[in-house]
Amino acid sequence: MAIEIEARDGEARAGTLRTPHGAVPTPTFMPVGTKGTVKGLTPGDLRAAGVGVVLGNTYHLYLRPGADIVREAGGLHGFTGWEGPMLTDSGGYQVFSLSHRRRISERGVEFSSVYDGSSHFFTPELTTRVQEDLAADVAMVLDECPPANASREYHEDSLRRTARWARRCKEAHSREDQALFGIVQGGLYPDLRRESLERTVELDFSGYAVGGLSVGESREEMLGTLALVAPELPGGKPRYFMGIGDPVGILEVIALGVDMFDCVLPTRVARHGSALSGDGRLNLKNACYRRDFGPLDPECSCEACSDGYSRAYLSHLVRENELLAHRLVTLHNVHFVGELCCQARAAIVEGGYEEFMETWTSRYAGPAGGRATGVAP
Amino acid sequence: MAIEIEARDGEARAGTLRTPHGAVPTPTFMPVGTKGTVKGLTPGDLRAAGVGVVLGNTYHLYLRPGADIVREAGGLHGFTGWEGPMLTDSGGYQVFSLSHRRRISERGVEFSSVYDGSSHFFTPELTTRVQEDLAADVAMVLDECPPANASREYHEDSLRRTARWARRCKEAHSREDQALFGIVQGGLYPDLRRESLERTVELDFSGYAVGGLSVGESREEMLGTLALVAPELPGGKPRYFMGIGDPVGILEVIALGVDMFDCVLPTRVARHGSALSGDGRLNLKNACYRRDFGPLDPECSCEACSDGYSRAYLSHLVRENELLAHRLVTLHNVHFVGELCCQARAAIVEGGYEEFMETWTSRYAGPAGGRATGVAP
Repeated sequence: MAIEIEARDGEARAGTLRTPHGAVPTPTFMPVGTKGTVKGLTPGDLRAAGVGVVLGNTYHLYLRPGADIVREAGGLHGFTGWEGPMLTDSGGYQVFSLSHRRRISERGVEFSSVYDGSSHFFTPELTTRVQEDLAADVAMVLDECPPANASREYHEDSLRRTARWARRCKEAHSREDQALFGIVQGGLYPDLRRESLERTVELDFSGYAVGGLSVGESREEMLGTLALVAPELPGGKPRYFMGIGDPVGILEVIALGVDMFDCVLPTRVARHGSALSGDGRLNLKNACYRRDFGPLDPECSCEACSDGYSRAYLSHLVRENELLAHRLVTLHNVHFVGELCCQARAAIVEGGYEEFMETWTSRYAGPAGGRATGVAP
Repeated sequence: MAIEIEARDGEARAGTLRTPHGAVPTPTFMPVGTKGTVKGLTPGDLRAAGVGVVLGNTYHLYLRPGADIVREAGGLHGFTGWEGPMLTDSGGYQVFSLSHRRRISERGVEFSSVYDGSSHFFTPELTTRVQEDLAADVAMVLDECPPANASREYHEDSLRRTARWARRCKEAHSREDQALFGIVQGGLYPDLRRESLERTVELDFSGYAVGGLSVGESREEMLGTLALVAPELPGGKPRYFMGIGDPVGILEVIALGVDMFDCVLPTRVARHGSALSGDGRLNLKNACYRRDFGPLDPECSCEACSDGYSRAYLSHLVRENELLAHRLVTLHNVHFVGELCCQARAAIVEGGYEEFMETWTSRYAGPAGGRATGVAP
């Protein structure tokens, strides 16, 4: 696992991530394939949408269908048919966000399954082994992602435990064809972020994630904290921001030097009938689309926009909660965010990133978005 | 609209249906695109699955999004993007099966919408005009499809009213690029079937459907009634059996000289996790598929079977109610039934249809279906 940085513009970086399953131009948005599928899309769709890395959720895959079955199928690549690069999270985030009962100790975290209430115990060693079974190109250390309103003392204890867990993950990790990334925590406290960064970087991971943001704090707090951390991460390693997927937020974290990011937003809002466009987010349930026979976004080259599906047709399918609506709008949104990353990359290479970001953002959020209803933050 | 019969084997016919949107080899299964979409599939998927004719439901499209919007989009072809042949039903079947309040009179039928309870009145003239707006290649006359347990007197009155409505539909119909088919009713009464057939055929439609079967009677009664009617229909016109989609039933109605048929079964059971195979219907929720890394049907060339999706993966997706499960199993089932029609056609051309049907049926229903759970009737 290596990243080659080809251009910088301010803190923003344009690079190429090299993985055992191919090279990916960065910055890159990673759509979330929670349960071994980006909802509604085939691997062929993902390729056509220009997706680089697909993310899988260890929490879900460990519980359903079970890591043993995925391993027997040849890992997530064999199981799902996606032949490009993949990344799995450690499951920690879902343990803390989904499971009602959970008990954290030095050894690990006990939790009850969101599916059936059954009891499970994640240790750094177990989540590392499970991720080795899932066999993505990148695995993540088990971390705790405390809620935004946790106390300073809680954050301090937590980031130190997360650092000790990170060491145990590194010691347990043995697959040479799989990179392991560390995760920087520390909430919104600059000194704790610095401490977490030092403790994590000293373990010498193949890449580094910034976690514990996008969890309820303001956008200003999020970016302020990221701005402290990102430039201090080793320049020659990939930088992964966990949990950003709205177009403006993507441009903002790219500006701070992030190479990779993921979020369910583009795929989740699609299933609720929201399509991303250069003029803002379109709520296809809005009455104004019932007779709008134009494409979702005339500048988009995705299958949904280029194969002649009209806003009127998609609006009808959305209202009727038809599977094809979920599929086509998801495809469009994933393609749209991928295309945005391509444009951002080109702007970085040309040294005009800041201007690109300003122009793009003001059109997306601005009054030109007259057709757009419900503009994303 | 014309059908050329190229071969006969017993009553079974192999032909070619010529429509303004292309030629279709018959016998042909028409998947149901209820609300302007065969659930989960794009027109490209349907083409790849070998689909000839797509069916649309006038009842649903009239209520949502409304025939005016479909007309403005250029008819169902323009609205949905499907460029091949289409057929719309008249909406009568849904009025009688879906709407709770309904009142039938000579003029037409009043009903309340299944969506919002709003009141509507279908006349032969209105359903004809709506179908002209929808602009499929084939429109159907408005008929009443009485329940299987209706009395003889009810059937007698009903078929005569249906015949009068058929005449009004024919008089109202003006699109020269659209065929209009009549429908033979009469329940399970041979003399009433004969009367309905005579009254319908004398109106000289472009094709004839047999309706009022597959509504709760036994398979034996259904086939017995069809065997009386089908051979008496004009030989040079297409014959459409309304409402058959299980593989064995398809072979049985083909044997009686049917050219076209439709049913939601292949697509509906797919969404419940049932995949058709030569060895019977596979219930993918069954535990035996959790570690079955083979394709759905090794003899099938659909995208789901040829792109390497395993039963284990599809079984996982089905359990998790994932969109991709609905999409891939639907695609498979539609392809499977289309391929079955191709094989039936080839057997008719070769003069070995009866043997083909026996061999195929005994494998599908027989003990060789050891892997198959829940074999279809």
